[in-house]
Formats: sequence, C-alpha cells, structure tokens
Amino acid sequence: MTKYVDLSNEELSGMLSSYKSVYRDYKALGLSLNMSRGKPCGEQLDLSLGMMDILGSGCDLACEDGTDCRNYGVLDGIEEAKELLSQLTEVRPDEIIIYGNSSLNVMFDTVSRCYTHGVMGNVPWCRLGEHGVKFLCPVPGYDRHFRITEYFGIDMINVPMYETGPDMDIVEELVSSDESIKGIWCVPKYSNPQGYSYSDETVRRFAALRPKANDFRIFWDNAYSIHHLYDDRQDTILEILDECRKAGHPDMVYKFASTSKISFPGSGIACIAASPNNLHEIKTQLSVQTIGHDKINQLRHVRFFKNIEGMREHMRKHAEILRPKFESVEAILERELSGLGIAEWTKPHGGYFISFDSLPGCAKAIVSRCKKAGVTLTDAGATYPYGKDPDDKNIRIAPSFPPLDDLKLATELLAVSVKIESIKQILSSRGVM
Amino acid sequence: MTKYVDLSNEELSGMLSSYKSVYRDYKALGLSLNMSRGKPCGEQLDLSLGMMDILGSGCDLACEDGTDCRNYGVLDGIEEAKELLSQLTEVRPDEIIIYGNSSLNVMFDTVSRCYTHGVMGNVPWCRLGEHGVKFLCPVPGYDRHFRITEYFGIDMINVPMYETGPDMDIVEELVSSDESIKGIWCVPKYSNPQGYSYSDETVRRFAALRPKANDFRIFWDNAYSIHHLYDDRQDTILEILDECRKAGHPDMVYKFASTSKISFPGSGIACIAASPNNLHEIKTQLSVQTIGHDKINQLRHVRFFKNIEGMREHMRKHAEILRPKFESVEAILERELSGLGIAEWTKPHGGYFISFDSLPGCAKAIVSRCKKAGVTLTDAGATYPYGKDPDDKNIRIAPSFPPLDDLKLATELLAVSVKIESIKQILSSRGVM
Repeated sequence: MTKYVDLSNEELSGMLSSYKSVYRDYKALGLSLNMSRGKPCGEQLDLSLGMMDILGSGCDLACEDGTDCRNYGVLDGIEEAKELLSQLTEVRPDEIIIYGNSSLNVMFDTVSRCYTHGVMGNVPWCRLGEHGVKFLCPVPGYDRHFRITEYFGIDMINVPMYETGPDMDIVEELVSSDESIKGIWCVPKYSNPQGYSYSDETVRRFAALRPKANDFRIFWDNAYSIHHLYDDRQDTILEILDECRKAGHPDMVYKFASTSKISFPGSGIACIAASPNNLHEIKTQLSVQTIGHDKINQLRHVRFFKNIEGMREHMRKHAEILRPKFESVEAILERELSGLGIAEWTKPHGGYFISFDSLPGCAKAIVSRCKKAGVTLTDAGATYPYGKDPDDKNIRIAPSFPPLDDLKLATELLAVSVKIESIKQILSSRGVM
Repeated sequence: MTKYVDLSNEELSGMLSSYKSVYRDYKALGLSLNMSRGKPCGEQLDLSLGMMDILGSGCDLACEDGTDCRNYGVLDGIEEAKELLSQLTEVRPDEIIIYGNSSLNVMFDTVSRCYTHGVMGNVPWCRLGEHGVKFLCPVPGYDRHFRITEYFGIDMINVPMYETGPDMDIVEELVSSDESIKGIWCVPKYSNPQGYSYSDETVRRFAALRPKANDFRIFWDNAYSIHHLYDDRQDTILEILDECRKAGHPDMVYKFASTSKISFPGSGIACIAASPNNLHEIKTQLSVQTIGHDKINQLRHVRFFKNIEGMREHMRKHAEILRPKFESVEAILERELSGLGIAEWTKPHGGYFISFDSLPGCAKAIVSRCKKAGVTLTDAGATYPYGKDPDDKNIRIAPSFPPLDDLKLATELLAVSVKIESIKQILSSRGVM
C-alpha cells in the first residue's frame, strides 16, 4: 500500500475520478440508513421479550420485604433492585439509589442539583457567575454529556483521550489548580466513542486527585460495564468508589449506570452510586422531587435477570448479534483504508461505538457526503463540546442498529467517501484544487 | 345537641374523663393504621391488574406510527398516549408532553427549569435574589407542592380557600401588583385536602389575571379530573388552557396530570399541558434531560384503557371502593361531632381527601393523640407552607388506604380525640386547666 501523500497529483486525480464513479454507484442504490446513534437493533430487543411476560396479573407483585410494588413509596428503589444494580455497578446495595428509565436523566438532575443547591454546603453553581464553573471533557466524548453542561452554561475544557483514558497530567494539573473546575465527564469502560477502558493507573490517579474545589466531582458514567463483544477479550477496570475511598476521597465521585442497553432502551432502570454523604444529599432532593420511581419495572427487571450472572448471560446474546457488525465494519475499514495514511480507527472489545479519525479537516465533508448518499452518521463535531472538533477529523461509527448487509454497504460508502475527501484535501493542500 | 362552649365547666370535666376512658379503650386495641397519605388500597390496585397482561411478548410493541416502543426515542410521548392523556386533560394532543411515572416530578422539574433558565427569556429565578420569587399558596393545600417551592427558597404566601376556590380578590391584588409573585399552586378540582372544585367565575378570573410579572405562571395540578365518588354528583370545572387563550393569556398556565390514581401509583404516566410557546421551551430542556420516557408503559396504558371512556368506566370501579369509605368517615363525624361547635369538615364529591377543621389550637394535639393510639394522620400543619398552620386547626383525612372496618375505628378514635382536645382547650381558655 502506498500512502496517499506519497502519490503524485496525477495518480491522485485519476483515483479521485474513479472513486467518484464508485460513489455515484452507491448513491444510485438509494440507501436510507442510520448509523448515528447507539441504538440496539430489533434482534437485540427481542432478547428481552420474555420481560413482557415475567409479571402477569397472577404474579405476586410484592417485593421481598412485603412492599406492594403497585402502590406509592420506596424513594430509593426496592431492595432486590438495589441488589441487582449494585452487582452491575460493583458497589454495595446501600451505596446506590434506583431511578427511572434513564441514566442521562439522573446525570442531568445531578448537574441541576449542584447548580441550584450546591454540593455539600458549597456555594450553588448558579451563584458562581460567568466562567465560575468549568468541566473537563475528555475528547472525543459523549455528545449528550456535553449538552447537559452546555445547557447549564458550564464552560467545557477539552482533555485528550488516550487508550489508557484521559490525559491525567492535564487533569491533575487543572483540577488541582483551578477552583472553578467542578467536574469531569468520564465513560471509563468501552468509552463513547473510542471503546477505550481506563487503565488501573488512570483510575488510581482519578481517585488520588486533590481538587482545588471542595465541590469537584467525577461524573463516572459506567454505561458499558458488562457490554462486552468477546468472551475472551474483556476489559476490566478498577472500581472507582472503592479507589476513592482508599485514597481518602470517598465523596469525590458520582457513578451512573442503567439497563438501557441490557433490557429495553427507554424502559430500563437507572441508578446512581455514591458515598453515604452524597447519597444523603441526593435523597434530600429526591424526596421533594418524587414519591418514588417505577417499582413494578424494577421488580420486572429483578424477576427477569435474577442476578448479575443472568445479566452477563443475557449480554453474551447481545454480543452474538453485535460482534459480527463490529467485525464487518472493522474488516471493511481494514480492507479499504489500511495503510493509506488517511484514516485511523479503534477496535473496541465492547461498548457501542468505533471512533474514526480522518485526515484533519475532512470529517464534516465525509459525513455530509455519506448523508447525500443516504447514510446518516453522527454529525461531525458531535463528539466534542459545543459540537466543535478543532481538527475536524473525528467521526463516531455506531454499528448496532442497521442490519448487517446494510451496515456493510454503509461502511463501504463511508470508505469511498473518506478516500474522495482525503484526496481532495491532499490535492488542495498542494494547490491543485 | 348543645355546643361545648355552652356547657359548664363541671359538665365538660365530667365528659372529659368519660371520653378519656373511651380513648383508653381504643388505645387498648393496639391499632396500627395509616391515614396519612392519599394512597389507593389494595382492592383499588387490583382493578388495574389486567394491565400486567395487556402487553405480552406476543404483542405488537410498535405504536400506530410504526415506532418500536422498546427502543430509544420519542421525546414527548407516543401519539396514542398523547391522545389518551389529552382526553383526560381536556386539551388537544398537540398541547401535551407525556412524561414518566410522576406528575410531582414534572412539577419539580418545571419549577427547577424556571429557577435555572427562566421563563421565556425572563431572568432565571435563581438570579432574582432573596425574596425575589414568591408563590401564592391557597391554604389548606397540598404539602408536596409547598415542599417544592420551599426547596427552591421561594417565598410562599397563604391565600384562603373557599368552596369556590382561592380568594380571587387577594390573588388578583397580589399578582397584579407584585412582580416577585411568579406562580400559584392550584388543585382546581376536588382540591387537596378539601375536595372543593373551582367555580366557573374563579377559573375565568384566573384566566383574566394581569400579572405584574411576565413570567408568572399558574401551576394547575389537575390531579383528580375524573376521580369522582358519585355518578350523580360530579363536579365539573372550566378548562383553563382554553380560558387563558380566550382571555388573551395563552402562556400563563402549566397544567399537570397523571394516571397515578387511575392505574398504578408509581407506575403510571404523567403529562404537562401548555401553550405552544411553553411546550417549545419545555422540550428544549427535555431534549437535554432525556432521550425519552418509558414508551412501553405509555403503550400499556393506551392498550388497557383504550380511551377516556375506558378510563371513566375504570374510575367508577374505584369510586365503588372509595365511596363507602368516605361515607363512613362522614357518617361517623356527623354522628359524633355534628352540632358540638368543635369541628367542621368537607363532604367532597371526589378526590382523595376530607379536610377537617378543629377548634383553633387543637390540631397538633389531636393528631398526636391519634398517633399515640396507633392511628397515623397527616401531620398537623402539613397542609400549610412551611408546615405552619397559623390556627393549628386543619387536619387532612385520607380515607382511601385502610380497610373499611379499620377506617371506622380510626375515625371514631379521631372523633373522641377531637372531643378530648376540644374540651381541654375550652377549659383551658376559661382558666380551669
């Protein structure tokens, strides 16, 4: 393979017109595919259909302590749901609160509470004035995290992501020196979009942070803790609450999780795990906000999965469906783009995404070109705060939703679009176009 | 019947020792009853058991427009749920957003949004300083409303409630003259705790309010819209969105409702109804807060109830269970306390509560006395902002939860406790005790 930059203008121009012809052929197929979001496909949803039958009218709808799950009450979740989600979250049952259907909602409410009421007696963030509250944002990252902090007018600072996690030198430096830095968004396992998992050293350095701000919190979105693609290649990470406790900073982290990509997205159950001090503060808010979340749905999840082993077994079935999709995308990218010096991408062991980097300045054009041929990718820039990728090179690939054959076509279209835009970019830099 | 105040000290003292003896007999029963909250009883919950079977694994889990309810998406609710809850809420389907399981949660989030982001371009309430935001609170009222505004540091001003609704002279005067008054809590139909329903004149005067504050909103908690106790005595109220529109103030109201006391409390669906301008603002927040609420549960409600007629029929079954309870309480109060000049209480046609007024200064003592004999009532004072009933006379009675026989005992205990505390109060005022 010759790298594109080592090819002559004439060679590149010739390839450009040939790839444009290939592109036109794809366009003529009239595709209409969506690879933009981490949505499970129908086949995955079918895996949880048994959940629809697990609680019939003839079932006992009381939980183990006798509470009638149909009625009001139980602010922080039924005991057996705490047991189940504590196994998922790798904490003790008394370290979590069970919420409704969305961990995103829990994260929003958490930021909102910090904003309106402050953290453990510290000044509410809404009183800190312009640029008074900043969050560190490992990039590329999860767009919906960034939208929450943007909504609350919180300044966001990009921090580079590596295979081991965020650049901890930068994190340590900023967190320890700037009192306005109040938080950091983390997807520590099978990160969105790279699929990276934080190394033990990274997690330990997180736990050992000495923040200038008393109300600094790590927002630890453990969205993909058991979302492996392989049986024999599974990432593991250290448990952050435990590490923070050992490091003498038990209150420094909020940990979030949900069953959204385990059972039914939108009809799952979510939770927060945190220290007793944090949980006390959260429950004070929660007791004003609601009488309790959906206990029947909590019971439904417990009766269906039974325990973490049931969940792990269930996730193996998800992996059976997802793995061929990830492998197809990776194989096509490898076949079409490897060695050309125009693209890099991740090969995750779990999670929902592949992170793709084009040559700088090409991502928007590539996404737009795919869109014109009927394939919707996540907007270029979305993986960065404010939607601004400074290098315009990152594209998030979400292989889960389209059927395998469609996915292959879409990835081939992506590859040819990458080739076209890369050649245009190189020729342009040479003053040819 | 002779009024207690017309009795001599000797007569009262004699009665006191005899009632104390009766009280001791009740205490000896070792009761353990809870009449504190508006919780449906088990028999009522059984009415909705069919809901557990309505969506089995063999059912089509797509909604009418083809959306797979199992997956992510549909921020503001599936169309058929909007249709159903718009019938409940008496608005158009495009005037509502469907939420999760709790209208209280929707109200909290609404106040929170006003606090953090302001209302339609007005200054966020969090920037208005101490005493910068006030709410009018018709009293007695719903304790959980008051706790929300208290949590956000919003000053609360008591407004008297009559059978026709809040004292509208006071409401008009305050709302039109004080820019810091940003809202009013209303339970317009079968009010909590009185069971009063606002008269047409009251609703029209609400719609015609000319607030000094551009961001004044009526928080219209239509919690009991079809929660009638009788077939032949049903309150009706004017539809507030419509009245506000006709009066030229379409944006002035947020209307809340849920199925919590129709299907399963805690596993129902909630909604907000408002003008297009308000809905646009709410959806902007909502799109950051969540990907969508539980659509399967929305579908479950639609398939079970089908339409408003299905709901009304269902509510008749609730009424069959609730009516004897309300009537028993009323009959015992009538038999034991009528004509004595020591108590007044409401006789609602619907809702979940009876509002009981003792002689001033007796409510805490009565509630405490009942508690000591094993009957938990709503805390005295709870029906007022900050938990402070200035006259210490209001007690909220919630007849729904206890079995009928228990309820009778509890009401008899309440009656004798009222007699005892009333006599003590009268004697004390005469300097006898």
